[in-house]
Amino acid sequence: MAYPQKTFAETKVHPGSLVGRRREIVSSTTLIYQLNVLKETGRYDAFKLGWHPSYSDPPLVWPIPNHLFWDSDVAKWIEGACYFLKQHSNSKVEAAVKELVEMIRSAQQPDGYLNIHFTVVEPTKRFTNLRDFHELYNAGHLIEAALAHQDLYNNDRFLETLLRYVDLLCATFGKGLNQLPGYPGHPEIELALLRLYEYTKDRKHLELATFFLTERGNPKGWYDRHYYDVESERRGDDPNKPPAYYPERRCLWYHQAQAFIAEQQTIEGHAVRAMYLLTAASDLVRVNPQAVDQKFEAAIYRLWDNMVQRKMYVTGGIGAMKRWEGFGLDYFLPQGTDEGGCYAETCAGIGVMMFAERLLQVRSNNNHAFMHFLANASAQLKLDGHFADVMELCFYNAVLTSMSHDGKRFTYSNQLASSDEELSQREEWFTCACCPPNVSRILGQIGGYVWSHHDKPDESSSEITVHLYVPSTLSFQVGSDTVELIQESEWPWGNGDIKFTLKTALPKVALRIPGWADSYKLSAECSTASTKNGYLDIPPNWLSQNSTFTLSIPLEPRLIAPHPFANQTTLSLARGPIVYCVEDADNPWVSDHFKAVQLDPRCKIEERSVYDDASGDSFVGLTVSDGASAIDLQKLQASPAVDAQASQHATPIKELQFVPYYFRANRGGKGQMRVGLRRAAPSAGK
Amino acid sequence: MAYPQKTFAETKVHPGSLVGRRREIVSSTTLIYQLNVLKETGRYDAFKLGWHPSYSDPPLVWPIPNHLFWDSDVAKWIEGACYFLKQHSNSKVEAAVKELVEMIRSAQQPDGYLNIHFTVVEPTKRFTNLRDFHELYNAGHLIEAALAHQDLYNNDRFLETLLRYVDLLCATFGKGLNQLPGYPGHPEIELALLRLYEYTKDRKHLELATFFLTERGNPKGWYDRHYYDVESERRGDDPNKPPAYYPERRCLWYHQAQAFIAEQQTIEGHAVRAMYLLTAASDLVRVNPQAVDQKFEAAIYRLWDNMVQRKMYVTGGIGAMKRWEGFGLDYFLPQGTDEGGCYAETCAGIGVMMFAERLLQVRSNNNHAFMHFLANASAQLKLDGHFADVMELCFYNAVLTSMSHDGKRFTYSNQLASSDEELSQREEWFTCACCPPNVSRILGQIGGYVWSHHDKPDESSSEITVHLYVPSTLSFQVGSDTVELIQESEWPWGNGDIKFTLKTALPKVALRIPGWADSYKLSAECSTASTKNGYLDIPPNWLSQNSTFTLSIPLEPRLIAPHPFANQTTLSLARGPIVYCVEDADNPWVSDHFKAVQLDPRCKIEERSVYDDASGDSFVGLTVSDGASAIDLQKLQASPAVDAQASQHATPIKELQFVPYYFRANRGGKGQMRVGLRRAAPSAGK
Repeated sequence: MAYPQKTFAETKVHPGSLVGRRREIVSSTTLIYQLNVLKETGRYDAFKLGWHPSYSDPPLVWPIPNHLFWDSDVAKWIEGACYFLKQHSNSKVEAAVKELVEMIRSAQQPDGYLNIHFTVVEPTKRFTNLRDFHELYNAGHLIEAALAHQDLYNNDRFLETLLRYVDLLCATFGKGLNQLPGYPGHPEIELALLRLYEYTKDRKHLELATFFLTERGNPKGWYDRHYYDVESERRGDDPNKPPAYYPERRCLWYHQAQAFIAEQQTIEGHAVRAMYLLTAASDLVRVNPQAVDQKFEAAIYRLWDNMVQRKMYVTGGIGAMKRWEGFGLDYFLPQGTDEGGCYAETCAGIGVMMFAERLLQVRSNNNHAFMHFLANASAQLKLDGHFADVMELCFYNAVLTSMSHDGKRFTYSNQLASSDEELSQREEWFTCACCPPNVSRILGQIGGYVWSHHDKPDESSSEITVHLYVPSTLSFQVGSDTVELIQESEWPWGNGDIKFTLKTALPKVALRIPGWADSYKLSAECSTASTKNGYLDIPPNWLSQNSTFTLSIPLEPRLIAPHPFANQTTLSLARGPIVYCVEDADNPWVSDHFKAVQLDPRCKIEERSVYDDASGDSFVGLTVSDGASAIDLQKLQASPAVDAQASQHATPIKELQFVPYYFRANRGGKGQMRVGLRRAAPSAGK
Repeated sequence: MAYPQKTFAETKVHPGSLVGRRREIVSSTTLIYQLNVLKETGRYDAFKLGWHPSYSDPPLVWPIPNHLFWDSDVAKWIEGACYFLKQHSNSKVEAAVKELVEMIRSAQQPDGYLNIHFTVVEPTKRFTNLRDFHELYNAGHLIEAALAHQDLYNNDRFLETLLRYVDLLCATFGKGLNQLPGYPGHPEIELALLRLYEYTKDRKHLELATFFLTERGNPKGWYDRHYYDVESERRGDDPNKPPAYYPERRCLWYHQAQAFIAEQQTIEGHAVRAMYLLTAASDLVRVNPQAVDQKFEAAIYRLWDNMVQRKMYVTGGIGAMKRWEGFGLDYFLPQGTDEGGCYAETCAGIGVMMFAERLLQVRSNNNHAFMHFLANASAQLKLDGHFADVMELCFYNAVLTSMSHDGKRFTYSNQLASSDEELSQREEWFTCACCPPNVSRILGQIGGYVWSHHDKPDESSSEITVHLYVPSTLSFQVGSDTVELIQESEWPWGNGDIKFTLKTALPKVALRIPGWADSYKLSAECSTASTKNGYLDIPPNWLSQNSTFTLSIPLEPRLIAPHPFANQTTLSLARGPIVYCVEDADNPWVSDHFKAVQLDPRCKIEERSVYDDASGDSFVGLTVSDGASAIDLQKLQASPAVDAQASQHATPIKELQFVPYYFRANRGGKGQMRVGLRRAAPSAGK
């Protein structure tokens, strides 16, 4: 069992690469920028438990107090800061971490309780609304922050506090006579408790996580009824007055609590909640397999499949529905507000990465789960390599797009097309500020996603599986030896050559062959290497003779499309893991958010080298110089139908310029952008 | 000014034709069937003002009492019955009408008030919730019923009662010191009052309608605020507890009250409300032009255009959104529940017919409005013929599909595709039963939609405009002469020949050339006839020599599609005014609601003659024998994208059988049906 939150420290991302540059900007700018925002908005001092004037504000989204997540905003900033501090010192950040931890310590109540809102604003209402309020979610983020802090300082200052709080939680929740058989509406604490258990080896931490995960959705969990129904009745809720964001009056699927996890058939509801929940559920399968059955495991893969095959955008974004920040119907994937939605929240993209990373580990550590997955007839996927494909897709597109090049502007939702209602642009901050510190957090630990290694129990040898091609150096101990593997490339740019240098002989290296790759080549040639489930296994004897070798995965532009059942018929450009978009900055003639632009699937795509002055970034842009056109809408009005056999009038577009989706909204302009362009329907003639 | 509710009596629809057969079944079966349902459900006796046990039931849709529309159910049945009684006597129906009218008379309160709910259940709450409760809507339907009754019996028994109620309404509503400046959340009374004014010539009836139509949406209508806001506050409504069907907490556009009518830019909200409102607004332009300005007129055409070009299904149905029974975003036209919606309520289809019919009259009676329309650059339509095209489309598809062949089963929503969640099937009745009696009502007066005639002021001559080709005889008086025009055809079947026989010389006959027609031919030839705005004008001198003539409009199968911006890329089959669908009854192999079926736009379409044993109906079926296929889904899974350049695996379908959409769900089966089939994307190769 290895968590990227720990293993990242074994990886040095090379500066100058795309990922390296993003990490540098977080380290040099974003952490301080976000710290200042925490201070300006009152979050920084909130654990002093004074009254902040904003506590009296009416909720922006009824009934959620605007400050309800402040605990987690601070916790996530600390967690991200600790990851960066582990590799780059920064006295200002360090001082703030220290001060915050002392404030958090001082905020703890005599019985161990620790929460701003339920101490300052509604002290009599602890644990009365697990469903809608974020009490246990905040606790989970504080646990994660404390673990990162402990990993960095090993001084117990933060962890000690959280352990006392967790003691209280363990006493409060469960099936015991004086316990509450409830679980959080917003999962997070489950995955935090499992990480905590890895550190403490205290079984009650494992047991509480197991309880939360196996009890969730129990239709007869409390007094023979659903916990949330009884809880709601006890509060005296009016059933005709549900929270403003509920899709329906009684809506258990919003929280993934409509059934036991094992019995959930499709992925539903709030996307971030679903991802955090399934990340923890995947962990549980490995850590506590005897607590769950095959149905529980099967559900995890079933929900993953449903998500990836039917509810994920080509950028890796998830969640079409703004109202509940979550999943819509199968194949309902509108690109923007004026087409019916598109949310693709940054945190949900990060959640997909977490979920995928955990599934990659299930393969390695728990073959019984993996074999079960293989036997699942509906899962016609490229198995483990597929999980890394999706992880990579999410990272480079749905996640990287959420921060500006200067590290000071962020997105919350990441639509695939702008509209007059929602332009493609970033904000300085959000009232509900979950996303910006989450980006810092994931970039801080990204090294843990690049590769994984598994040591033989006797520590005599190890094997490394490379998931992502990020210029970086991996270095870790096997017994008394230091193993070092270096990958050097221009990835995701350049020609796709990755040069590996291995400093110690190992039994095996497995290199991911991306699902999108048409071909690959290993130099020197290795006749005994073979691909399995999307990974190229390189045998020990060849490695011992080839300590440097090159994997070439051609990076060429290609056209991708959503499933034909998706509610759009579009084409998008991709190159390697990068998905592209059109922006008004490069195509200034646009006035309709590229709605009328169509692409012929036989179009010619050319690469161009782009250097961006403002950011100093370079990337490969794409140009379609033959095959793009704009439908002439004046000549085409439905009344309500159009003649399907008449030829469509369209004006050719001489050159249509594409930039990486992650690069959007960095250059001002009108905020017009689109990823999926209409697929031109060839005229059938009459 | 002529209302189809009056002029229908001049037309005899020929028995045996499609429309004739539907009318016969209503006359012989449906009226009695519906009467029995009214009795069984308690509606029939409700005007006796006793307590019905169901009055205590909790609302199916909070906060609307389930019986709130009972007044209108009874009124619409009476109205429809009177239309049929005018042309076919039926003693049982006549006796029921008589008894109901006496009950309604007896239900009137001393001050003229007349409403079941607000007399029996909440007598202290009259006129306190114009926004959500249907008090004035019910009043409107009672006025319409009374007018139909008066037209039939001319005995004042019903109308007298309503005139007393309207007196109370005129005193209650307006801008006066002791009046309420409100207007109904569900329009209907406006069009009823305008019809009433035509009969009574009492200006206060016109003034109340004018007030309701011009005051609607006033942001400062009451104490300098929106009427609905003040009204809501007076009720003590909790703003966080809106009616369950509201799209948003404060949602004025649901009721078309977000702005003055003149300032509304797009058609929004509840579709039936919008249609009844705009029907009345169109009437007002003609009846009381000095009360409205050019902006008011322009809005009517702007909203029509927005609806037809962007928010109407190829069947003529409107309203994609089930939650608010209304309009979605521009071009958001999913075909079924599993694609994101589709409502296309029967009453909304009838409302489109009413609105279109009124617009056809604006052309004839108010040239200033018409010229204004011509000058409207955004209205690139076929002008008046276009309105009749849409009226015809709605009638034959969105409306006729709502009643079974035996006249005893009905639909409320008319989706274009079935799904596991909502099969294509009919019901015996509905708790909210607006649709079934509305179908009887429209079929009772359909003769008034077939043609219109305008007499010269001196009654020396007349002109007839033929809108619909329905085998029928028109007969009316001009001065002391009887004018008779007969049209004979197999329409909408046969080859499209329509034989006209004119019994009196007239100055002019104009025949509609449908927008969907590729060609037409008049025999004998008439070199002086010319088409204008979709109508073929036949001059008097030719008519005086050709009292019989034939118009041939070839009825051939064709492929139609929604606008390319619609959230689907589909093809549908049509033939003349009839839109087709595929059903499992003819294609029993289907198991996926035809979701995977695709059509090549170059497919061959053949006609076949179908005789339906059960109903005795004949029609033209269509068969695609080359060009239909089913996508092989096993070979195509998005993860999340698919390779846009790979060829798609599809299995050819030997013969795909189509039947008219109106004919669906008459033969049992699995309830699987679809109108729009996926347009096959030709492979681009690699």
